[in-house]
Amino acid sequence: MAPAPSSAAEDAPAGGPPTVAGYFYVGGRYERVADKTVMVGQMFVQSRRPAAVTQPWPVVMVHGISQTGVNFLGTPDGRPGWAQRFVEKGFAVYIVDQVGRGRSGTNPEVYGPYARFSTRALEETYTAQELYDLFPQAKLHTQWPGGPGVQGNAAFDQFFASQVPYLAGAQQTEELVDPALIALLDKIGPAVLVTHGQAGLFGWAVSDARPDLVKAHVAVEPNGPPFFDVRLRGGKDFYEKSGDGRARAYGITRVPLTFDPPVKSPEDLVVMQAKAPAAEGRIRCWLQGEPVRSLPNLARVPAVIVTAEASFRTAVDDCTTAFLAQAGARPDSLKLAEAGLRGNGHMMMLEKNSDAVADALIGWIAARPR
Amino acid sequence: MAPAPSSAAEDAPAGGPPTVAGYFYVGGRYERVADKTVMVGQMFVQSRRPAAVTQPWPVVMVHGISQTGVNFLGTPDGRPGWAQRFVEKGFAVYIVDQVGRGRSGTNPEVYGPYARFSTRALEETYTAQELYDLFPQAKLHTQWPGGPGVQGNAAFDQFFASQVPYLAGAQQTEELVDPALIALLDKIGPAVLVTHGQAGLFGWAVSDARPDLVKAHVAVEPNGPPFFDVRLRGGKDFYEKSGDGRARAYGITRVPLTFDPPVKSPEDLVVMQAKAPAAEGRIRCWLQGEPVRSLPNLARVPAVIVTAEASFRTAVDDCTTAFLAQAGARPDSLKLAEAGLRGNGHMMMLEKNSDAVADALIGWIAARPR
Repeated sequence: MAPAPSSAAEDAPAGGPPTVAGYFYVGGRYERVADKTVMVGQMFVQSRRPAAVTQPWPVVMVHGISQTGVNFLGTPDGRPGWAQRFVEKGFAVYIVDQVGRGRSGTNPEVYGPYARFSTRALEETYTAQELYDLFPQAKLHTQWPGGPGVQGNAAFDQFFASQVPYLAGAQQTEELVDPALIALLDKIGPAVLVTHGQAGLFGWAVSDARPDLVKAHVAVEPNGPPFFDVRLRGGKDFYEKSGDGRARAYGITRVPLTFDPPVKSPEDLVVMQAKAPAAEGRIRCWLQGEPVRSLPNLARVPAVIVTAEASFRTAVDDCTTAFLAQAGARPDSLKLAEAGLRGNGHMMMLEKNSDAVADALIGWIAARPR
Repeated sequence: MAPAPSSAAEDAPAGGPPTVAGYFYVGGRYERVADKTVMVGQMFVQSRRPAAVTQPWPVVMVHGISQTGVNFLGTPDGRPGWAQRFVEKGFAVYIVDQVGRGRSGTNPEVYGPYARFSTRALEETYTAQELYDLFPQAKLHTQWPGGPGVQGNAAFDQFFASQVPYLAGAQQTEELVDPALIALLDKIGPAVLVTHGQAGLFGWAVSDARPDLVKAHVAVEPNGPPFFDVRLRGGKDFYEKSGDGRARAYGITRVPLTFDPPVKSPEDLVVMQAKAPAAEGRIRCWLQGEPVRSLPNLARVPAVIVTAEASFRTAVDDCTTAFLAQAGARPDSLKLAEAGLRGNGHMMMLEKNSDAVADALIGWIAARPR
């Protein structure tokens, strides 16, 4: 294997204008493990703020699967990241490392086994989908720095260096991260959540638990579609349902949400699949069948689902929007292509037009319902 | 167990004046592990620099066992950390997470098993030694924020939240971190190393490998004493040799150093123990017996061994100084108590007078041989 270049991202250009930085931990508790008292459930929170905060609410950025807060600190080709862009627009920004990863610390004895992505998995879906063509929008991908993000592409090598093992237990992950994020909001007060991918799960659960503290939820390509996972395989029938049973028992989360009428167990939610996709190149959504239950807490939190043009989520995000709308939560849908931002994949905060994508998010936050 | 307070370190006061921040990864290579291509050996490097860099060399801060770069980002009671202090004095600062931890990513399949500290272990030696009295200087400890650092002390709870599992294999750790630090220096050019505890091991090895790039090595209570580990037990005979055989085969490292005359194997180094301690409350040092070999590369790198008044290393650091002096490297010795800085323990960068300790280091760097 060729060694990963160590100079892909230079320090100086990644800097940008000065900001104020700090950190703290939230959510830990002491627990006896074997013969030792250790800490469990703690989450690292890194903060940056401008000299003068001009926005009413801070932003909490929550990364997705296999990632850490590094996603938001800069791009793998050495440009300033979303954190910097938001700070320049007057936001105080909090960036977490999910419980159990990065500077939050691993703990397999308590949290369970870990898993990791191969280069191939990330190339196929995140950074070089145009070469693998596993979903209808893959060929539209143009925004990875330096061309398709494969081994040997300097930005890919830096990005891949930032990947860390993640908890194999998806349910366990939600049960660990949700309370830590709630502890963070209880500490810092009302805030805007910006979640990416997997972290959408946490964003819905935290919005449900703290509808008065989540002033808005920007769900960037949230984990989905509702209820089931799909495997992408390319071609005309580009997807198939994968796994046994529901991946997300409550539609958009594995943990219970506040439904009305209440549900006693996931089986109370009736699932039906749409007869046809809502548009070409989309999947047939799984939604609630009758009786459709509402999500009254989520209905109180302004939300937007942000979808790139060339992502493996492009074909499924509308199903999450539809599921929420059906339950009375009516999130906005921000399709980057319709805003003139073409060719992005899932890791849009790392791609060539990352600042423009950030500005689109900031524009929505500025205009969102109060 | 009482939950750890989540509000021990506030964001705002931890900030201080604005600085410029960035990051990159160094040292990774692709490797096939089971059925996946993953990255091995990569190290996360976080950078901060002032608007105007006024110092000739950047500083690379390397944390010790069980820690991450978080040690240098702020104190657990919410004050700015050493990184901020150095930046304010005009240094560009690079802060790493050791290979295999934190944002560098764990990898037990390749790196081997991990270990972790209990609260008790850290209280005894790092934060509340005055309550356990396991070494002659323990009772002098006064600098932990909010009194002795035990469970329930808010600063201890934040500090303990920042602990992460570390590689159980000490030799493996050196073999992983040394090349990553060398890759960092090869990338950024000449720099001053500031190492803490365990990281002293890396500092000596990197100085030996790159004597022209390490402009100085500030070894804050480096891993020691030479050759053997000691177990602290309090009382008149407060220590005993622990473990079988040499803990550090080459005296101050487990990896080979450049000796003159050369050594073919560790057994070429003759070890003898001093008949008496050099001072009261010190251990009897293990040093080289005849023929004493020199360390010509280390002799070219200005170094200082920094020792706190009330640390578990206070009794052993002079042995490391003596070992190096005997080999012709003649490091300086900076005893904080003699500089008027009283009552510090090993985690001096987190303690009440952390800025004053940083200033003592900066003073030595300013005056060091060119």
